[in-house]
Amino acid sequence: MKIDVLTLFPRMFEGPLTESILGKAVEKELLEVNVTNFRDYSTNKHQQVDDYPYGGGAGMLLKVQPIDDALIDIQAKNPGVKQRVILLDPAGKQFDQPMAEEFSQEEHLVFICGHYEGYDERIRNLVTDEVSLGDYVLTGGELGAMVMIDAIVRLLPEVLGNEESAIGDSHSTGLLEHPQYTRPADYNGQEVPFVLTNGNHKLIEAWQLKESLRRTYLRRPDMLEKIELTKEMQKMLTEIESEEVKCKE
Amino acid sequence: MKIDVLTLFPRMFEGPLTESILGKAVEKELLEVNVTNFRDYSTNKHQQVDDYPYGGGAGMLLKVQPIDDALIDIQAKNPGVKQRVILLDPAGKQFDQPMAEEFSQEEHLVFICGHYEGYDERIRNLVTDEVSLGDYVLTGGELGAMVMIDAIVRLLPEVLGNEESAIGDSHSTGLLEHPQYTRPADYNGQEVPFVLTNGNHKLIEAWQLKESLRRTYLRRPDMLEKIELTKEMQKMLTEIESEEVKCKE
Repeated sequence: MKIDVLTLFPRMFEGPLTESILGKAVEKELLEVNVTNFRDYSTNKHQQVDDYPYGGGAGMLLKVQPIDDALIDIQAKNPGVKQRVILLDPAGKQFDQPMAEEFSQEEHLVFICGHYEGYDERIRNLVTDEVSLGDYVLTGGELGAMVMIDAIVRLLPEVLGNEESAIGDSHSTGLLEHPQYTRPADYNGQEVPFVLTNGNHKLIEAWQLKESLRRTYLRRPDMLEKIELTKEMQKMLTEIESEEVKCKE
Repeated sequence: MKIDVLTLFPRMFEGPLTESILGKAVEKELLEVNVTNFRDYSTNKHQQVDDYPYGGGAGMLLKVQPIDDALIDIQAKNPGVKQRVILLDPAGKQFDQPMAEEFSQEEHLVFICGHYEGYDERIRNLVTDEVSLGDYVLTGGELGAMVMIDAIVRLLPEVLGNEESAIGDSHSTGLLEHPQYTRPADYNGQEVPFVLTNGNHKLIEAWQLKESLRRTYLRRPDMLEKIELTKEMQKMLTEIESEEVKCKE
């Protein structure tokens, strides 16, 4: 996969792109990332990339020209390759796991990172997708791009060491993950549930599924509406409901 | 404000913490950030911080001891200061703007960044908050912590140059931002709306409010349910509804 990032703060990407899973994907040549300062494309003699908004208001807006020219250059350098061009913006579609999976199928992604002040509206005509990380305001799109790149790249084949690891995660099964424990069996009086230590795999699996359902039921009931429940899961949920009612009493 | 970050990848924070608004807040001494590798607190002779899960399964889990001891050390170094301890986890409460505002009122925040494989359940007993960035899976909590720190720190007084800038943002008014334009007035035939260029501020404000409503109505109708609409806004929404129906026809 090839990823281009257009930003005014290329140095922000230095740590994240060399460390952790992303660094490994680049090392293994499964991923090529180019970070470009689109200020270099400004035709303004002061290399200005922003300007005052028409109609007044606080803050400056990103101009369309430098970003347009940077995109044209990326297209010219990658002839015949179709780019998915993603604008990071709080008014965009909310990023989620299905979107990460969709983007992970693409050959070439381009991320445009703006300032908090905003974009000239005509920049939206240059992109294929407008995406938001969540309902919160950030100073720029850089961290959002890094988050999306991380979520996308870890889905590429061979990036994660253990193929299984990406499958059991929260949000890929549609359920939150069940509680997990590692050694010691007793930490300051807090013990690991007995079922996990006695080696009966059928019982362990049933416990894990039930606790996954319980956590989702308690914290994110909205997620339960989006998945198809087996008969076993429905039975477990009925149990959980009556157990939790008892807890509250 | 003081922020501590517990992570196994301290180098990931290098770029983001020195660039952009965060770097400026640190420079102005409005913010102190300490990034600690909690591997340094492992009492294991190989400095191991993870171990196999009880009951089997893919991946390794973070052990409770190194994180517990790192937190005890932070408390000891900050006597009398109450820490808000935030665990980054996909099963946590969804991060949003009201949460950013709440955290921005705190004196001392501690972020615990995990791996994708997960935490020993008993780590949850050490924290005050479990928070998720959104419904997607990341390789670690580091980028999530950076996003949250960015959203929180920009709300601190004096961090943003222009006090007004944090107020008009999408998600702080409860509406998405209206389209904005800067020079040139004509870019390859795409013109700035006339109302924005004729200097009538009353008309401009009305246009901006209506287009803010339109964008929210089209893209995030759920946000409209969460705010109180003035009579003017209700009238505009009725207009928008009939305009958009016409567009579809």
